[in-house]
Amino acid sequence: MCGTCNGDTAGAAPPAANSTTDNAAPSASTSNGVYPAQGQPASSPYQSVQDYISNVGRFKIIESTLREGEQFANAFFDIDTKIKIAKALDNFGVDYIELTSPVASQASYDDCKAICQLGLKAKILTHVRCNMEDARKAVECGVDGVDLVIGTSSFLREYSHGKSMDMIRSIALEVIAYVKSKGIEVRFSSEDSFRSNLVDILHLYQACDKAGVDRVGVADTVGGATPRMVYDLIRTLRGCVGCDIETHFHDDTGCAVANAHSALEAGATHVDTSVLGIGERNGITPLGALMARMVVTAPDYVKSKYNLKALKSLETLVADAVQVNIPFNNPVTGFCAFTHKAGIHAKAILANPSTYEIIDPHDFGMTRYVSINSRITGWNAVKARIEQLGLGSEFSDDQVKEVYGSPLFSAVFHCTGDIDTMRRTAKIKQMADIRPLAIDDTDSIIRSYHLDLQV
Amino acid sequence: MCGTCNGDTAGAAPPAANSTTDNAAPSASTSNGVYPAQGQPASSPYQSVQDYISNVGRFKIIESTLREGEQFANAFFDIDTKIKIAKALDNFGVDYIELTSPVASQASYDDCKAICQLGLKAKILTHVRCNMEDARKAVECGVDGVDLVIGTSSFLREYSHGKSMDMIRSIALEVIAYVKSKGIEVRFSSEDSFRSNLVDILHLYQACDKAGVDRVGVADTVGGATPRMVYDLIRTLRGCVGCDIETHFHDDTGCAVANAHSALEAGATHVDTSVLGIGERNGITPLGALMARMVVTAPDYVKSKYNLKALKSLETLVADAVQVNIPFNNPVTGFCAFTHKAGIHAKAILANPSTYEIIDPHDFGMTRYVSINSRITGWNAVKARIEQLGLGSEFSDDQVKEVYGSPLFSAVFHCTGDIDTMRRTAKIKQMADIRPLAIDDTDSIIRSYHLDLQV
Repeated sequence: MCGTCNGDTAGAAPPAANSTTDNAAPSASTSNGVYPAQGQPASSPYQSVQDYISNVGRFKIIESTLREGEQFANAFFDIDTKIKIAKALDNFGVDYIELTSPVASQASYDDCKAICQLGLKAKILTHVRCNMEDARKAVECGVDGVDLVIGTSSFLREYSHGKSMDMIRSIALEVIAYVKSKGIEVRFSSEDSFRSNLVDILHLYQACDKAGVDRVGVADTVGGATPRMVYDLIRTLRGCVGCDIETHFHDDTGCAVANAHSALEAGATHVDTSVLGIGERNGITPLGALMARMVVTAPDYVKSKYNLKALKSLETLVADAVQVNIPFNNPVTGFCAFTHKAGIHAKAILANPSTYEIIDPHDFGMTRYVSINSRITGWNAVKARIEQLGLGSEFSDDQVKEVYGSPLFSAVFHCTGDIDTMRRTAKIKQMADIRPLAIDDTDSIIRSYHLDLQV
Repeated sequence: MCGTCNGDTAGAAPPAANSTTDNAAPSASTSNGVYPAQGQPASSPYQSVQDYISNVGRFKIIESTLREGEQFANAFFDIDTKIKIAKALDNFGVDYIELTSPVASQASYDDCKAICQLGLKAKILTHVRCNMEDARKAVECGVDGVDLVIGTSSFLREYSHGKSMDMIRSIALEVIAYVKSKGIEVRFSSEDSFRSNLVDILHLYQACDKAGVDRVGVADTVGGATPRMVYDLIRTLRGCVGCDIETHFHDDTGCAVANAHSALEAGATHVDTSVLGIGERNGITPLGALMARMVVTAPDYVKSKYNLKALKSLETLVADAVQVNIPFNNPVTGFCAFTHKAGIHAKAILANPSTYEIIDPHDFGMTRYVSINSRITGWNAVKARIEQLGLGSEFSDDQVKEVYGSPLFSAVFHCTGDIDTMRRTAKIKQMADIRPLAIDDTDSIIRSYHLDLQV
């Protein structure tokens, strides 16, 4: 029924006026409704974060659909699927692709080797426990870098591996030295960083930094951090190490996108993502939602670096592979992400899309849709639909309002119009009060009114 | 219901110095892995935001499924559905229920009146344009309060209503005086607050505050704000007005939950939500995700105030009414929100759930699930399943590892065990490398291995 308003295709073409402000013109706060770009004058003091440590305009993505994503409940990727996903990620423009540990199983080992040999532009990483045996297997596969991880919270030290911080440090330094000796990148990450002792992990990160690690990693493994906790920890860490800082946020409390943004503001350099956020439990920072966030914060960087128009097909590929639907409310690609319904919204959107859109759907190859089928529709939206149907020149504004069915207006109109003709005609608004209307229903109300006009 | 004429000021109580040590909040950080409760000692300086202005431990919810939610593409609520949803929200314990403007249509008017007469504990609000005609209709319906809204960004002033800031102020003051004269609550909100001129809106809010408005509202209408922008604006506003501060965040860039949290940290008192976040485009702060966030930040307040176990049925009711699936990755109620899969996760979860869970599923009437069907399964998870099947006493750890199928272990085991018997037995891990396994598959591998043991 109402579900016909499939934002991508059904009904409305984008309103004609929309290209008015949409151009490549980067730099200054665009008139297209995005917030001021980094370093540009802002119209008010709170609209732009311009700290010198911020990396919102130069971050890198470590895409972990083939590692974290494999930990999603529904995930089973055979080698063909893995290769398809790896190529699609490469085409999208991610900087790194992270794979499941080759120690996990024979297929994990074989697949890791195979993906390393694809010759992708993206660097290939694998994610292993911080020990020599795992690191050797990783190196054997031919990866561009090894992501080491170990739990540092008291929870994990007690209930998982049982090691002291001193033991962790000495193992870490040994493994880092080994991986570096092979001439490839190495990252050292704590796990559950936000429930680890601050001094302990700073001490550990600093030792790794001195040992020449390429990146240290901060992980909100349980998804409990807030943007401000993230900002504080990353900003402190930024002052303690010279290497890059990678961040990894689970989404249990719905903050994974905002936490990634906060981390970049505080000086982090890399963000872990997965397509649709798939991962352990309800997953991590979704690639698409992060793109939505960052294209608003740093439009030039994001639009020039990533192939945003490939997002929808990338998400569809992964959704099919793990047998889920794209969430109805997914940023950008959800079926109604650019559907406008309330009267006052539709009116303004038709005049200038930036009024109610912070993201231009065309940047992602999507289109907007203005719904005209409900009791909260305004007459401007009906007018736009009449124009789309090619009947614009044959309706006066008064007639549009009549077919729209404004109760206030009708009272006036009935005093001057042909009352009988008008009463015979169903009104969109009154009908929508009684039952859900499809676009076909409203179109036939408009056409039948139009026929009456010809009589 | 039916409010105290002076408005409910509990949330507005000027933050007293004692809020940093909040004696009222019982119990320390629970041993279940949640972050330290407000005012409790934290194990590191960045784990707790204890600003005296923070309202994270005493916020109120304005639930707008029946207003913002009606602007969702798929929404058509008849009166029966509206009443069901209103009662379910009331049972959940929301403070306010906001309804579509009675000016929108005849049914909207009738339904608003009907819901006001239900005698719910929650206060009933309706959301209207800031003009006398709409305000009169609202009052006529018998609501406990009227939420006034008008666009204040240059975008909306130019393309929507065309009014100057002076005109907006003078209309606002007239309408506020009228609603107050009727002895009911009144809120004044700007629209698109983050793209409005800061000085202009502060000036406007201050005038409304002096006129005795109960709440001013800040709205991220286009969903482009970041937590830090929110924190800065709300904190500034907190210093300019004495009344309550309501906040409304769209989710276009995936930050609506974090923004709400940030607003409360900065002194906001009320958060707008809808069930599953339904609303214009991809919606607003979802009630369930906000609960997930806040139960971690302020466990005692949230658990004592809201009927968390009713969340799942409330979401199901609304999902059915608007014909969507609950997103696979929904916090708390998504099908895999408490599913653990990777070997190192499962091992620790079995020893202590807090290792990888920041939310206790039982608080929401949910249960956790440890997956044992994949190539990344660890042997501890297989052991737990064997115990669930009542076979625990009949397997040694070595035998568990054998049926689990660790390649490293098998090599050792085969030197000492009955090789023929073992080879006949399919191993979980090797099978999971070949195809997706259901729980039935792993169970039958375990049982068949168990049978072999009896031979």
